[in-house]
Amino acid sequence: MESTITVNSSREQMIAEFHRVRQFTESLCLPLQQDDYQIQSIVQTSPPKWHIAHVSWFFEAFVLDHFKTNYKPFHPQFDYIFNSYYYTHGMMHPRPKRGLLSRPTVGEVYQYRAHVNQQMRQLMESVVEEEWEALAFRIILGLNHEEQHQELLLMDVKHNFWSNPLKPSYRDDLKSMPAGTRETRWVEQPGGVHSIGHSLEGGFAYDNETPQHKVLLSDYRIADRLVTNGEYRAFMDDGGYREPALWLSDGWALLQREGWQHPLYWEQRDGEWMQYTLGGLERLNSHEPVCHLSHYEADAYARWAGKRLPLESELEIVLAQQPVNGNFADADHLHPLPAGETGQWYGDLWTWTASPYAAYPGFKPLAGSMGEYNAKFMSNQMVLKGGCCATPAGHTRASYRNFFYPDERWAFTGLRLAEDV
Amino acid sequence: MESTITVNSSREQMIAEFHRVRQFTESLCLPLQQDDYQIQSIVQTSPPKWHIAHVSWFFEAFVLDHFKTNYKPFHPQFDYIFNSYYYTHGMMHPRPKRGLLSRPTVGEVYQYRAHVNQQMRQLMESVVEEEWEALAFRIILGLNHEEQHQELLLMDVKHNFWSNPLKPSYRDDLKSMPAGTRETRWVEQPGGVHSIGHSLEGGFAYDNETPQHKVLLSDYRIADRLVTNGEYRAFMDDGGYREPALWLSDGWALLQREGWQHPLYWEQRDGEWMQYTLGGLERLNSHEPVCHLSHYEADAYARWAGKRLPLESELEIVLAQQPVNGNFADADHLHPLPAGETGQWYGDLWTWTASPYAAYPGFKPLAGSMGEYNAKFMSNQMVLKGGCCATPAGHTRASYRNFFYPDERWAFTGLRLAEDV
Amino acid sequence: MESTITVNSSREQMIAEFHRVRQFTESLCLPLQQDDYQIQSIVQTSPPKWHIAHVSWFFEAFVLDHFKTNYKPFHPQFDYIFNSYYYTHGMMHPRPKRGLLSRPTVGEVYQYRAHVNQQMRQLMESVVEEEWEALAFRIILGLNHEEQHQELLLMDVKHNFWSNPLKPSYRDDLKSMPAGTRETRWVEQPGGVHSIGHSLEGGFAYDNETPQHKVLLSDYRIADRLVTNGEYRAFMDDGGYREPALWLSDGWALLQREGWQHPLYWEQRDGEWMQYTLGGLERLNSHEPVCHLSHYEADAYARWAGKRLPLESELEIVLAQQPVNGNFADADHLHPLPAGETGQWYGDLWTWTASPYAAYPGFKPLAGSMGEYNAKFMSNQMVLKGGCCATPAGHTRASYRNFFYPDERWAFTGLRLAEDV
Amino acid sequence: MESTITVNSSREQMIAEFHRVRQFTESLCLPLQQDDYQIQSIVQTSPPKWHIAHVSWFFEAFVLDHFKTNYKPFHPQFDYIFNSYYYTHGMMHPRPKRGLLSRPTVGEVYQYRAHVNQQMRQLMESVVEEEWEALAFRIILGLNHEEQHQELLLMDVKHNFWSNPLKPSYRDDLKSMPAGTRETRWVEQPGGVHSIGHSLEGGFAYDNETPQHKVLLSDYRIADRLVTNGEYRAFMDDGGYREPALWLSDGWALLQREGWQHPLYWEQRDGEWMQYTLGGLERLNSHEPVCHLSHYEADAYARWAGKRLPLESELEIVLAQQPVNGNFADADHLHPLPAGETGQWYGDLWTWTASPYAAYPGFKPLAGSMGEYNAKFMSNQMVLKGGCCATPAGHTRASYRNFFYPDERWAFTGLRLAEDV
Repeated sequence: MESTITVNSSREQMIAEFHRVRQFTESLCLPLQQDDYQIQSIVQTSPPKWHIAHVSWFFEAFVLDHFKTNYKPFHPQFDYIFNSYYYTHGMMHPRPKRGLLSRPTVGEVYQYRAHVNQQMRQLMESVVEEEWEALAFRIILGLNHEEQHQELLLMDVKHNFWSNPLKPSYRDDLKSMPAGTRETRWVEQPGGVHSIGHSLEGGFAYDNETPQHKVLLSDYRIADRLVTNGEYRAFMDDGGYREPALWLSDGWALLQREGWQHPLYWEQRDGEWMQYTLGGLERLNSHEPVCHLSHYEADAYARWAGKRLPLESELEIVLAQQPVNGNFADADHLHPLPAGETGQWYGDLWTWTASPYAAYPGFKPLAGSMGEYNAKFMSNQMVLKGGCCATPAGHTRASYRNFFYPDERWAFTGLRLAEDV
Repeated sequence: MESTITVNSSREQMIAEFHRVRQFTESLCLPLQQDDYQIQSIVQTSPPKWHIAHVSWFFEAFVLDHFKTNYKPFHPQFDYIFNSYYYTHGMMHPRPKRGLLSRPTVGEVYQYRAHVNQQMRQLMESVVEEEWEALAFRIILGLNHEEQHQELLLMDVKHNFWSNPLKPSYRDDLKSMPAGTRETRWVEQPGGVHSIGHSLEGGFAYDNETPQHKVLLSDYRIADRLVTNGEYRAFMDDGGYREPALWLSDGWALLQREGWQHPLYWEQRDGEWMQYTLGGLERLNSHEPVCHLSHYEADAYARWAGKRLPLESELEIVLAQQPVNGNFADADHLHPLPAGETGQWYGDLWTWTASPYAAYPGFKPLAGSMGEYNAKFMSNQMVLKGGCCATPAGHTRASYRNFFYPDERWAFTGLRLAEDV
Repeated sequence: MESTITVNSSREQMIAEFHRVRQFTESLCLPLQQDDYQIQSIVQTSPPKWHIAHVSWFFEAFVLDHFKTNYKPFHPQFDYIFNSYYYTHGMMHPRPKRGLLSRPTVGEVYQYRAHVNQQMRQLMESVVEEEWEALAFRIILGLNHEEQHQELLLMDVKHNFWSNPLKPSYRDDLKSMPAGTRETRWVEQPGGVHSIGHSLEGGFAYDNETPQHKVLLSDYRIADRLVTNGEYRAFMDDGGYREPALWLSDGWALLQREGWQHPLYWEQRDGEWMQYTLGGLERLNSHEPVCHLSHYEADAYARWAGKRLPLESELEIVLAQQPVNGNFADADHLHPLPAGETGQWYGDLWTWTASPYAAYPGFKPLAGSMGEYNAKFMSNQMVLKGGCCATPAGHTRASYRNFFYPDERWAFTGLRLAEDV
Repeated sequence: MESTITVNSSREQMIAEFHRVRQFTESLCLPLQQDDYQIQSIVQTSPPKWHIAHVSWFFEAFVLDHFKTNYKPFHPQFDYIFNSYYYTHGMMHPRPKRGLLSRPTVGEVYQYRAHVNQQMRQLMESVVEEEWEALAFRIILGLNHEEQHQELLLMDVKHNFWSNPLKPSYRDDLKSMPAGTRETRWVEQPGGVHSIGHSLEGGFAYDNETPQHKVLLSDYRIADRLVTNGEYRAFMDDGGYREPALWLSDGWALLQREGWQHPLYWEQRDGEWMQYTLGGLERLNSHEPVCHLSHYEADAYARWAGKRLPLESELEIVLAQQPVNGNFADADHLHPLPAGETGQWYGDLWTWTASPYAAYPGFKPLAGSMGEYNAKFMSNQMVLKGGCCATPAGHTRASYRNFFYPDERWAFTGLRLAEDV
């Protein structure tokens, strides 16, 4: 179910939406054993317990503390241990040590969530009318923030579980997937001046999607589906991981240092390629989109294929022509599916673009600590578009700018080709 | 209660002792929340869950698998994930990643324990008479092994909890400690030829305590109690951590790299020295023995005091003259106490000696994988004697050789002075 | 003296130009002691001996070997030890170990240079007419390559000498510098569609400057001079290095890890700010441009000043309106100078832009190993424009794209402000 | 030529000996190119330039500065850059950065040496009689110190040159070596009380060799020659580097981390084993002693052979029965030779013992900064005995205690077997 909540929504609508999003976070944790809440397998991942506490802290630090007079935090040190990166807000527990916090316990963290929920409900019911719009803005931001952590939680659980030699599955009842694939179709796009970014009328967007502005492009075409495992295996079989001419310099150095020979989560057992999924170790399906690639691998594949990755602007323009439908978290696959007949545009996998994550012309970050949400990461990262199979439905849009470092692979990332006409 | 079990004990006695030791492990875990079972704060510590599974694996791998025909392990991969360091036995999960195993869950590990207990009881009851002595030897080794992990579990929990900024306590009901101290008394010992090490008649000992052999010593004297917090503070106040002439070269390099200025677990709050204990953060008591020192700090203190650390042989000779009484885990302090009138010889803190951990003349390790228990660590480590406040009563003796790397501080370690006459 | 050599130049002109550039490299080494040729103070720098051998290797590997039948290399292993990063050409000595090559000696490397010069002269005189243009292209590329290493050699020597606690000077006879400064003047530029990049008629350019293409900009203004030491000190005095809100996330993490509190080469002696220069340690001159900044520092300063860094395209458009004059290596200052009345556009310092180094639309790298020259570095680096006081005159131009990682500071880098109108 | 100099030697004798030792250092540098003086291939090695300056600094800091009124150092910062590790003397340049000091130049360092020589000669001629003995003691210490650096210089040059892919030789005129080997003969030694260490009447010794004291040993036998390359290859061929049961735990971890499969300086070319020597890359000679082993490899070999390494005391007792003859630096092989008929006791290779380097009972270090010479290294290192082919003749003796970390391999180290009777 997609959110249509805005700062003009009624209090009832907002309370319902708040409840819905908060509830979905908890539903994602239902398959977890208590032990699973504690794991941080690499520095990029966070323990599930930390995620569900941190998103509550966000409401404490940026909503309750601002709008409730003399708000007393649930616990005096949670501000320290559940702040993620808001330096302007205060000091924080070091990120690599999130997995060492056995206390608060899972039970206490759920109490914390309940406390925040109850305080938020009270606030939403009682705040004076003059403050409502400002409050609503912060709540919507907080809910979008929580949705981001919903997809991160799934990505992190996947890595945590995969790190265990027992290779446990997160779910054994995920919806099964259709077989079959089809040829790529190329969507032709005329160049010229186009508008990208988010116009402020169009509902919620992050500050980094603004301002809407014009870009000048040449003619191009773009694939209507993601590259598949079968196609990627052809690249591997052709020596893709052994040919330096295909790789960006930093990627080649990394490949050699880490001994990369295939995407993350792939392994060979008895001569057959397997892939770890949230449903456990599965035989590799050639028709599914190849996933858990770094930017370097995506870029090398594109060069090998004689194509290139799309620019962010090129992809955004095409996305804006499509309905925001696709294989999102709500579809309950939690794994990318082969492309259907109508094209593969949203969901499935965040698509690497050729565009470094940088500010749009005229960009102004939000004021105060909120300005740390997106702007300070505009260095060394690449833009990804479209959402993935772990993204909550309604969370993404054409102008949405996700970003990861080019060496990161634990996210649900994939690859789509483009070329000049 | 101290064990007097030997290979000549009856089956009933052995079954009772097996039950007692296994039970004590579980009692140490009673204060833990389920979240606490999962933490590995540094590479030296292991998660409690891992400890309690590993000691059960020991019985599977080295007892059940040898004495039960066609023994089928509880789980096919536990041999991989709960092997600690027995390379000759097989491959193992990397030590630094023990904290990443959310599965098996705590519940499953307790099932594993119960299964092993039941299988062991059956084996002890049913094994043929000719195999009893060989079996009894392995069981006694396995129980001593489990007792070692009991004290490690307490040391590890202490470090895990201290790593949490909330500084939780492991127990709030530890027995309180008497105040007051007294002057050190010096025990004079004549040199000459002395016998150290373990004679095989005297009950269980590890292979590294054998063979009993003669050493030639000069006259010496040895302090009858440990150095106290108050005495150590005088060293600190005199600039002990800033004077390179007091330090071994490797120790000084470490001190500078890590910024050491005091023992582990000390901190200043509002100008007052505090110390983290298993009962939480406490005001530092000057009369208690200083603890959680590296060998380098112990050695530097001794040099500053114009004395030296005792040799292992010097200390063993004095220990052999004393009853094996003291502040062990059963006393339920889990913290070192000020010295009493009769001297402080066993318990409280493992005492660093000046002796590198090396083989005794004529030493032969146990055969097979059991030979990896002690012998392969005879490099770069120092001997400690006497047991500590986390050692199960009955586990230690004069000839017992504990060993740690000279830079390690998370164990319950302390310091006793000696000098030439 | 500026080069006007093109593929249409005569053989005599080319021979003269080849001689001029090769000679200039050696003249830069005249102030070096033989010991100085050997130093590699950080992985980014190379020993002078390596530089002067590597630029000769370039002519061996990419010219002589291609155009001379059965060319026999000067030494069979120089291809291994003096290849910098051309993986498609062959294996190479690891970059961090360039400082460990005491052999070949300095004398042998000069023999190598002489040999290559003599072979190249012979080739230029004797090649058949049909091959001349292809040869001329490669020679021009090789000479531009050597000029890049001329400026790197100066940057590297500066870092190498600074790393020595004796703080030796490279030259004691550098031309002295005028005092005084002046206010910044702002150059207003209209937005709209502009052309950037290099048109292939306009003389030599690297592949990364092509193709010429159109960009769409908003109105902006740009400072006509670099930010000065005095202005940068105001940022420092205002707590610029302590305020996380001013910094990109990766920059802040780096600042904390490295303890950055000022630009590279600054230090305080007796309360006064000093700066290491190629002429030795000097009192800091407030009127000179601030130099040896990382991109993070440049970006933080701009944010503090309420401005921003210019886009590459914005700066290129203004540069294209200016004559290519300025304080280049030939001026023999080897240090940035205060801005003169006519503006400070070329020379002095490479200016950080806000633009990540990425491919232009339609970009095609050179074929073969030459394609590794620029393209593979299009990841994680930022564009700099304009040249610096160590750049050989005639080497730079408006479309020139230099690039460094945002954390690098040993190059002659500086900062110019821009803002939206 | 061996030194017989003592504190009772005449001034003329001392001046002659001073000259002889200083001269020998310089003669070792004759084969070096100026470039070679600058290299530090690993943190353990020092550049030759640093060695020859440091040994001069020793005379400045510990002799001239003490015995000459108002002695003005040759250069005010040499005390900082050429202090090796005397923290109580003052601050020093970091060891890993010794290779970055292109200044002072080689020429300046030779001037420094000449200056110190001239000042020392003047001091030896002019010091008042009452100070002579104290001065003589310091000079003898300084000359022994310089001899230690002579052998280190050769070891370091070997590693530096080997690190160069050109594999240059240090000398092409080293004396050739006789072929042939012979069986090991075992020297039987009775146990009981023996005296080891240095009695102060017997000429110069380092503080760590004192006091002479008694040890109690069991009967043992010891091999009269070193283990050969041929014998070591049998260990390798038997899987010695793949069998964890043979290795100390720290050694096995290192072997796996570094991928060790053979001693340092060995490599296979076209299926044949080669060994890098100071004369360049040579075919491996089965009859020569195996060299450049870590303690871990020596220990693993001994375990594989069913023997053990000798204790320091065991070996010292046998050494004390032998004349101090052997293959020392003066023999001009600079490589170990096959054992002769009279046994192989001194020279060839420093022999690893099973004894950690620790203080003798009653040990007192020298007073002041001289006390940092040996004592502070009594941690984590192992004793080696006997000298090697790079040791100056006359420098070693039975009681001499050399020490290296068990993982170090660049020194001329070898292996001799022992066993209990």
